Amino acid sequence: MQKTHQIYGIRAIIEAIDSNEEIDKVFVQRGLKGDLMRELEHLLRKNEINTVYVPIEKLNRLTKNNHQGAVANISPIRFHSLEEFMGIIERKEGSALILLLDQLSDVRNFGAIIRTAECTGVDGIIVQKKGAAPVTPDAIKTSAGAAFKVPIIKVDHLKDAVFYLQASGIKVVSATEKTNNSVYDVSFKEDTAIIMGAEDRGISPSILKASDQLAKLPLLGEIGSLNVSVACGVFLYEAVRQRLND
Amino acid sequence: MQKTHQIYGIRAIIEAIDSNEEIDKVFVQRGLKGDLMRELEHLLRKNEINTVYVPIEKLNRLTKNNHQGAVANISPIRFHSLEEFMGIIERKEGSALILLLDQLSDVRNFGAIIRTAECTGVDGIIVQKKGAAPVTPDAIKTSAGAAFKVPIIKVDHLKDAVFYLQASGIKVVSATEKTNNSVYDVSFKEDTAIIMGAEDRGISPSILKASDQLAKLPLLGEIGSLNVSVACGVFLYEAVRQRLND
Repeated sequence: MQKTHQIYGIRAIIEAIDSNEEIDKVFVQRGLKGDLMRELEHLLRKNEINTVYVPIEKLNRLTKNNHQGAVANISPIRFHSLEEFMGIIERKEGSALILLLDQLSDVRNFGAIIRTAECTGVDGIIVQKKGAAPVTPDAIKTSAGAAFKVPIIKVDHLKDAVFYLQASGIKVVSATEKTNNSVYDVSFKEDTAIIMGAEDRGISPSILKASDQLAKLPLLGEIGSLNVSVACGVFLYEAVRQRLND
Repeated sequence: MQKTHQIYGIRAIIEAIDSNEEIDKVFVQRGLKGDLMRELEHLLRKNEINTVYVPIEKLNRLTKNNHQGAVANISPIRFHSLEEFMGIIERKEGSALILLLDQLSDVRNFGAIIRTAECTGVDGIIVQKKGAAPVTPDAIKTSAGAAFKVPIIKVDHLKDAVFYLQASGIKVVSATEKTNNSVYDVSFKEDTAIIMGAEDRGISPSILKASDQLAKLPLLGEIGSLNVSVACGVFLYEAVRQRLND
């Protein structure tokens, strides 16, 4: 972890949150009390920032500086709000292609997906604040720098984003094996958002239910599941293929 | 590294080579001399087995057993010869789909590709003995077990395999950006072999030259390159799509 991507000290972290810095995760010393710590914990909860309680030794390994019991990892990426992003989409010529990731947790998969998204002209990637893979230096490296090029949008609840997209006339297609509908029977020519699920559990049932269409990749073997970044690539390139054919 | 995947002792390794065990790599103690060691080194060179010269401390870390200056990593996978594999292909009903990997070196990419190959009905994956990613426990894990299901064929020279495939009437398509030909303009309906290149250098020029067709994926962004396991997935699924359409 590079020092430039860290803030330490309770007061400094409170100020960073107040000025809307992109904080990935805060490490807090276990058992630490006091008014300032209470204020920090209140802000962390209110802003749904990932918080890990650790022994002081862990904090001492994270930084050589005087951390006073708290170290925050700052994201090198600026995230967008859904409202800001939809403003861009509405002004766009041609069909939109949007990607939603539901609780995808592996940073290397995340990085590979950002890279593929950049190569397929995806307008933006929507992830949920809680439970999503953080944009770590590893994710940025795997993305081959695409993390600085493709807008990443953080939302409180992915399902609300689905409803927002649908209300804007964008078709929402979930990539799932829980359907008989093949990806090759779906039209990606109009404005489309594609949802990819978590490595283990796939897309959550409530999001599947909210989707306009479910689509699966044909699986010809016995294993019955693809790596999510590979599956995502095949979905996005099917959209590219159909749009190039037009 | 699990002990069950190791052989130690110079004599034991010589016998393993003589009885055609699949040896990934041999660690030899630096500076060790003697007749038996000369015999081992001769066999390692003759069979083009990857050999690493290391200090004795490294060997002591690899095994607690009496290694006598040499430890071999044994592959848990049984590899096939090209002749054996082509015998299977000739008896196959329907079109063959074969994958060739040219000096792909990342074991996680290799594992993800084996997994995709299993899901797309690939008949076998041909790799070169020298320079290819080994089938490590990590590769097997990333393959989700597919490494035990898809035949992996090791050849001395990938270019000879290309000629062999062509002589058997199989079209060889190289995935490369060094062409104007799109993957969507290639027919994958007949017997086809697809070649994917190394992460950094792509496919070697002599293999590109020997191929029947070159094909690229459209790249709509600025990054200009995909992860090789993602690109491989898109190529294989384009073959699946075309064959399902038939």
